[in-house]
Amino acid sequence: MLYFENDYCEGAHEAILKRLMETNMEKVPGYGQDPFCDKAKEKIKEACGCPDGEVYFLVGGTQTNAVVIASVLNRYEGVLSAVTGHVNAHEAGAIEFTGHKVLPLPQDNGKISAADLKDYLQTYYADGSYDHMVFPGMVYISHPTEYGTLYTKQELADISSVCREYEIPLFLDGARLGYGLVAETDVTLKDIANYTDVFYIGGTKVGALCGEAVVFPKKAPKHFFTMIKQQGALLAKGRLLGIQFDTLFTGNLYLEISKNAIETAAKLKAALKEKGYEFFINSPTNQIFVILENKKMEELGEKVKFSFWEKYDDSHTVVRFATSWATKMEDIDSLIETL
Amino acid sequence: MLYFENDYCEGAHEAILKRLMETNMEKVPGYGQDPFCDKAKEKIKEACGCPDGEVYFLVGGTQTNAVVIASVLNRYEGVLSAVTGHVNAHEAGAIEFTGHKVLPLPQDNGKISAADLKDYLQTYYADGSYDHMVFPGMVYISHPTEYGTLYTKQELADISSVCREYEIPLFLDGARLGYGLVAETDVTLKDIANYTDVFYIGGTKVGALCGEAVVFPKKAPKHFFTMIKQQGALLAKGRLLGIQFDTLFTGNLYLEISKNAIETAAKLKAALKEKGYEFFINSPTNQIFVILENKKMEELGEKVKFSFWEKYDDSHTVVRFATSWATKMEDIDSLIETL
Amino acid sequence: MLYFENDYCEGAHEAILKRLMETNMEKVPGYGQDPFCDKAKEKIKEACGCPDGEVYFLVGGTQTNAVVIASVLNRYEGVLSAVTGHVNAHEAGAIEFTGHKVLPLPQDNGKISAADLKDYLQTYYADGSYDHMVFPGMVYISHPTEYGTLYTKQELADISSVCREYEIPLFLDGARLGYGLVAETDVTLKDIANYTDVFYIGGTKVGALCGEAVVFPKKAPKHFFTMIKQQGALLAKGRLLGIQFDTLFTGNLYLEISKNAIETAAKLKAALKEKGYEFFINSPTNQIFVILENKKMEELGEKVKFSFWEKYDDSHTVVRFATSWATKMEDIDSLIETL
Amino acid sequence: MLYFENDYCEGAHEAILKRLMETNMEKVPGYGQDPFCDKAKEKIKEACGCPDGEVYFLVGGTQTNAVVIASVLNRYEGVLSAVTGHVNAHEAGAIEFTGHKVLPLPQDNGKISAADLKDYLQTYYADGSYDHMVFPGMVYISHPTEYGTLYTKQELADISSVCREYEIPLFLDGARLGYGLVAETDVTLKDIANYTDVFYIGGTKVGALCGEAVVFPKKAPKHFFTMIKQQGALLAKGRLLGIQFDTLFTGNLYLEISKNAIETAAKLKAALKEKGYEFFINSPTNQIFVILENKKMEELGEKVKFSFWEKYDDSHTVVRFATSWATKMEDIDSLIETL
Repeated sequence: MLYFENDYCEGAHEAILKRLMETNMEKVPGYGQDPFCDKAKEKIKEACGCPDGEVYFLVGGTQTNAVVIASVLNRYEGVLSAVTGHVNAHEAGAIEFTGHKVLPLPQDNGKISAADLKDYLQTYYADGSYDHMVFPGMVYISHPTEYGTLYTKQELADISSVCREYEIPLFLDGARLGYGLVAETDVTLKDIANYTDVFYIGGTKVGALCGEAVVFPKKAPKHFFTMIKQQGALLAKGRLLGIQFDTLFTGNLYLEISKNAIETAAKLKAALKEKGYEFFINSPTNQIFVILENKKMEELGEKVKFSFWEKYDDSHTVVRFATSWATKMEDIDSLIETL
Repeated sequence: MLYFENDYCEGAHEAILKRLMETNMEKVPGYGQDPFCDKAKEKIKEACGCPDGEVYFLVGGTQTNAVVIASVLNRYEGVLSAVTGHVNAHEAGAIEFTGHKVLPLPQDNGKISAADLKDYLQTYYADGSYDHMVFPGMVYISHPTEYGTLYTKQELADISSVCREYEIPLFLDGARLGYGLVAETDVTLKDIANYTDVFYIGGTKVGALCGEAVVFPKKAPKHFFTMIKQQGALLAKGRLLGIQFDTLFTGNLYLEISKNAIETAAKLKAALKEKGYEFFINSPTNQIFVILENKKMEELGEKVKFSFWEKYDDSHTVVRFATSWATKMEDIDSLIETL
Repeated sequence: MLYFENDYCEGAHEAILKRLMETNMEKVPGYGQDPFCDKAKEKIKEACGCPDGEVYFLVGGTQTNAVVIASVLNRYEGVLSAVTGHVNAHEAGAIEFTGHKVLPLPQDNGKISAADLKDYLQTYYADGSYDHMVFPGMVYISHPTEYGTLYTKQELADISSVCREYEIPLFLDGARLGYGLVAETDVTLKDIANYTDVFYIGGTKVGALCGEAVVFPKKAPKHFFTMIKQQGALLAKGRLLGIQFDTLFTGNLYLEISKNAIETAAKLKAALKEKGYEFFINSPTNQIFVILENKKMEELGEKVKFSFWEKYDDSHTVVRFATSWATKMEDIDSLIETL
Repeated sequence: MLYFENDYCEGAHEAILKRLMETNMEKVPGYGQDPFCDKAKEKIKEACGCPDGEVYFLVGGTQTNAVVIASVLNRYEGVLSAVTGHVNAHEAGAIEFTGHKVLPLPQDNGKISAADLKDYLQTYYADGSYDHMVFPGMVYISHPTEYGTLYTKQELADISSVCREYEIPLFLDGARLGYGLVAETDVTLKDIANYTDVFYIGGTKVGALCGEAVVFPKKAPKHFFTMIKQQGALLAKGRLLGIQFDTLFTGNLYLEISKNAIETAAKLKAALKEKGYEFFINSPTNQIFVILENKKMEELGEKVKFSFWEKYDDSHTVVRFATSWATKMEDIDSLIETL
């Protein structure tokens, strides 16, 4: 059985495991106060070009979204997100569980636009009874999005500009950030640090066993550490996260291993195109969305694991093939033969 | 510098790291639906003598407490805990963040008594306006407690009996359960499964990089999986937890490695006694609480790392020395020389 | 200045004030345990045809929505509502503040359809990872809706049928229920009690100083009283609500006074039509939505108070005129002259 | 049957009902934006000596506590309260429902002391891991307390001084404030405005049908209005509260009617003393706590309604007799005869 169901089906990059072994018996303080975390933070801040920023390590994506959003928002505020955004659609209500509303914005290929955002804010404040409604207190975007698409630098700049005009922080969910940075794009890590107020660099889906590095390019909310604990997200052995991110941000490893996902995806995409498959969306990263006839889907499902994405029509379904840092080119070849 | 500050200052037992290496490139489903988790669950249920129970893996202690309590309680209920219980004192309000009150009970050496519990419940229901107050909906105990003490089998049976009379679930926080099971005690894992409605087997402090195994000897609350996700506690690469617990529950490893903490603590305790140190509490497990003169504490602090516990009086302080599965007997010897 | 801004700009029906005076010095228990509440509950249950149901009195609309929804839902569930529903749009995030998501459904003239509801539920449960999302745990509708429109008996029956198929409670927000029951409609109070699982009879907008009567035709959630208190919604002098609803449900007063709103609105609507005004929506109840040229709106605004509803286009605005139980026909005449 | 069960068993002072009648058909804006509220606010600010402060009207006591506390606290903070404080003991977990912990302080006759408060804060910040605990973010006191006792001016000044040293707002629950101000005391309304950061003037128990006036002597939290709405506490017909407080603060009515409760209580207390009854606490206000033999309690209960307070010992019970603005001296005489 070939496995393209998601980008978190293997363990960790071997350099990480090796480093975990080497450091295993060193005795260090808990809760992220260890030297591994310190070093990883420095390297990340340098890579992001924000030496005065703050970095925190959390364990998973939904957790990170919930902790960041609930810590940055005032209690009378909600978070704006594409209607297809992970926080709106696939987190079991984790944001609402913390007391905050997700305010949906229109999406195009998983992305919001500065124009729609501005329109929302103008309409909101033009309403005489806006103080009977949820204040828009943060903008959430994902990059790559849930559909694997990417914002251009100009799009990011425009969204950021609206946010700053309205004094609303911009939060970028980078659960798959590595894959976004090495795809065809004009957006760099430093651009992201420049245009956003908080973002995270995904580890779980890009070579780590677990872990997301939250970066506040300027300043974290007061007592963010305590709020992490309050949401049950503080890891006792913070070293586990520090060692992993220290490894990923040593010698450019994070970007290097990300490339494999793009290269394997590119080959697969080319083959799908050649064989006449119809794409649901044109994604430049590691997720490929294809419309399959239901019968074909069943056949294929006997040999390959992929994700059901959504019903397309009564006889067709959208499915997703995902590659990752760990995908082997030979598995791509086998998959292509099977198609 | 000798390090006795806590029991989570090293990484993981080498058997765990070895197993992580071996299984690293196997492709498995996410979110705990993998075969490693399945095997670990079976082994744990067998060890607990509850073949029809349910096991879930979470990442850390405060997280586990918050998820279990908030999932089991009805929204008009609070959780009863010793006033010194971790959930009442040291979790940054994680329980209250989920909307529930911690109802404090008197403690003796970190333990509650069946008599105090019964008295609380009788008084509560005798009050004509009890429905203007928080319903007691769960009893939380820790074993070992925050002071390293242990319930006897009879004490557990008595508390359990009151709980069942009032139909209130009993939850046992076993963050250091291994150390409790191999200390001088008449309480076994099967007893715990028998007397409680939910408990967890701590991994973080007993040989794992992270991870706590939550056991419902009978049945988990409906949609517990979704509630884990809703609280941001669902690990994408659930294998990380499954592999660790599978290893710990293969060939009795969990209990075997726990013994080291007890043996090293015993030697240290004997030496402290001999040298005339005064104990704050008589703990039978891996935490030793000693009353030090402040000047002595400062001197010692230059060579040994230990925990400040609490002020004793103006010239004395309670400090804690902790051993663990990883403590080396030679470090104990060095510490004894230093005392 | 003529006043048509809303339907809560006067005090209470005089029969209510008279009754408050008469009973003022009677000494009765607090928290709704008084004989006035008891009598009012009996009358309401009779009017609703649910003698075995339960009735509770709360103070205001948003409060009632938040208390009912947060008390009925399980914590992993959200409430389905028309995207224009009051709970989704105009309650400052009161539902989310209790930890629950509002799941938006498409709307037509403020109403949802059984077909859209069924489609939502089918799609939800067809998704292989539905347990990573918010469970749909309740359906919220308003009658009249926020646009003054009404469900037909058949529409209610169909929605109710889908709800029962999926075992999801149906909740009807009747903040303006009186006006809905005496407009042109085939829906009676007994139909509502028959098709829903919980609904409320609005007092604030229909003759009372404050107060909403929540009716559970079958059974309230366990400890609903305590949950009212927990949300700060329990009135110490419950008599204030009991006396008002007892008065409103004596001799058909509630429906009688509701008629005035419909009659005055009908006359106004006829005049608007005759004068060529364009309606935004065809509302059969006491709210009239008209599209005005912005200049006209400003002119009119000097003599009449009405509500800004929403921007229609760059030169037009939707405004609302509301009548009520207290509107005088002579004010309608004056308004018509002004138009 | 004589009725001394509580101080909210009658309706409202007749001047209030009269004013509700007179103003009933005036058309005014909703949500507290009406001229009655405006006038009442001005009068209250003048009476409190804080012309630049802010006043808001809420409906009931538990609601007011929950709204004020949850609006003032940061999310990582809890509220300090006497262990016997209403927010800790008798609000069904309303504070915790908003996500905040109540941090109990020792009490003496229902009061906290500046010394205990200071000790708590010093100990808290001396703990090296205080950021793993709940930050003390507000101090809650009640005046009169739940036991009818009063702080002296010096005690208030001392508590206030500790609060200001630690930059923690001081909140005074004045559900029965009128009775506290006209009892034997050196504390004035202006003192309270001076020493606290927020307090409320109770209406429900002092002559109103409902209503509490929240006073921020300096400034309310940003968007407090929206947070009131978000907690379901915003009254559509805000006039109901404005008219009542405007009446109570016209011509000193609030204090005048409060005196009756003190005078009737004084007479009752003198008689109890003379007849040899034992007091549980020496309360200077309108609540009298007496220790009764259980048999005596049963006998008395056949003729008089009073409150069960708490069990004293196996054969005795503490009961409460409450007087109010509405208590008739002739009922006191009848009660005395019965004793």
